[in-house]
Amino acid sequence: MDTVSTARAHGGVQGVYRHASAATSTDMTFSVFVPDHAPGARLPVVWYLSGLTCTHANVTDKGEYRAHCARHGLILVAPDTSPRGDEVPDEDRWDFGKGAGFYVDASKSPWATHYRMWSYVTQDLPALIAAAFPADMDRQSIMGHSMGGHGALTIGLTFPQRFRAVSAFAPIVAPTQVPWGDALTRYLGPDRAAQRRHDAVALIEDGARVKELLVDQGDADSFLTEQLRPELLARACRDAGIELTLRMQPGYDHSYHFISTFMGDHLDWHAARLRA
Amino acid sequence: MDTVSTARAHGGVQGVYRHASAATSTDMTFSVFVPDHAPGARLPVVWYLSGLTCTHANVTDKGEYRAHCARHGLILVAPDTSPRGDEVPDEDRWDFGKGAGFYVDASKSPWATHYRMWSYVTQDLPALIAAAFPADMDRQSIMGHSMGGHGALTIGLTFPQRFRAVSAFAPIVAPTQVPWGDALTRYLGPDRAAQRRHDAVALIEDGARVKELLVDQGDADSFLTEQLRPELLARACRDAGIELTLRMQPGYDHSYHFISTFMGDHLDWHAARLRA
Repeated sequence: MDTVSTARAHGGVQGVYRHASAATSTDMTFSVFVPDHAPGARLPVVWYLSGLTCTHANVTDKGEYRAHCARHGLILVAPDTSPRGDEVPDEDRWDFGKGAGFYVDASKSPWATHYRMWSYVTQDLPALIAAAFPADMDRQSIMGHSMGGHGALTIGLTFPQRFRAVSAFAPIVAPTQVPWGDALTRYLGPDRAAQRRHDAVALIEDGARVKELLVDQGDADSFLTEQLRPELLARACRDAGIELTLRMQPGYDHSYHFISTFMGDHLDWHAARLRA
Repeated sequence: MDTVSTARAHGGVQGVYRHASAATSTDMTFSVFVPDHAPGARLPVVWYLSGLTCTHANVTDKGEYRAHCARHGLILVAPDTSPRGDEVPDEDRWDFGKGAGFYVDASKSPWATHYRMWSYVTQDLPALIAAAFPADMDRQSIMGHSMGGHGALTIGLTFPQRFRAVSAFAPIVAPTQVPWGDALTRYLGPDRAAQRRHDAVALIEDGARVKELLVDQGDADSFLTEQLRPELLARACRDAGIELTLRMQPGYDHSYHFISTFMGDHLDWHAARLRA
């Protein structure tokens, strides 16, 4: 692991790091915030998965999470959203390919070689975090935005024992029912069973369970009615007995202005469950 | 005035605007955050002046001021740091020319036509803010970072009746004594009297007074000993009877990680004086 940069911030250290990922067969860059802590202490870990077009840098610059993480003693890890590099296939669009890995392990050519973000986020990077940072891997939680909200929900629903809290900002909740979900068909092929394992609403319909979820959604979000459709998650959670706190936030859009506004609420909610 | 963008954020509106400036004879872009307020209410105004290479966007993205401004009911205005445009002369360096206006009205060719940031920040933009936003211009304060800290100090010292609070993050306090001050010679010529009107330490030595100043400075700031030299401000304030609160912050650098960490303290300090 190489250190790209570190800076003191909000009584902790905000770092950016790079490593050779066995999952993606590329170098991957990610950021980690570690609050000051007692020698030998291990801190709970919050995973933040980013949305389409983003890298680690968007939330690191604009997420306004550090003060809250420092207050609660939480590490926050922000991975990239796809493999990068000249050797990685791509297309000239912003909702598929680089910056749009959709947190799946692709099975279709030419994507299957490098687009393995599921394995990267659930296995490869956690192993590195456990080894290189003062992280208590028995206390993890996960959140994300938009495509990263999709990732947080699907990963949280798949590993309910690993994550003590799961929340999302404006998540894609049912990719198999919306246009952005075309990416699943491209990465995974037409196999509906494979696609349903990467669709939060379908996972719940198929039996996946967590106790509770927190979702914030701006009602001025231009992707709300076509791509995000939180009502589908609300219905699935109601039918499954999952306690969903879905907050429609008047006037808020899809940007980091929205995310940063409610980041503190989410980290309070995570901290209460990670510290319980 | 054209609206470039607006977004709801932290219980207010973060806007970016553009207007044709009579001071600089160019279009100028700036950002304004306005917290929600009662109809007809007018809110105190905090000016934030940015440092070398920055535009309004750096603090708008990374300054983490909105939650604090909303809590205190403060408008925050972030101007650009220089004129922009193809017609504006420039040089291929980052500490002079575009992005480096040093908050002076240049008197030397070819800079004098457009590089009039003093008039822009003290006259032109305030008139627009007063007309277009719910601003109480009888309650203003000013802060800034690095070159913008220089601007905040020199403007605050020059208009002590206008600004109820003056603070800075890692300011250039004595440009006539440090390498970055070469810009003053380029913009203003060798006239020492003119240069001293744009040097906080010289202004104080020459009789300018405010009651008090707040300055935060990271001790890991790579510009500390050569360019910033806060000890010169400390000595001038001591000799002049100005109450300077100079806080050396261990481990902090010159970046927005430093600024965002202490933004809340500065806005608390400004609010106490604006609301007094």
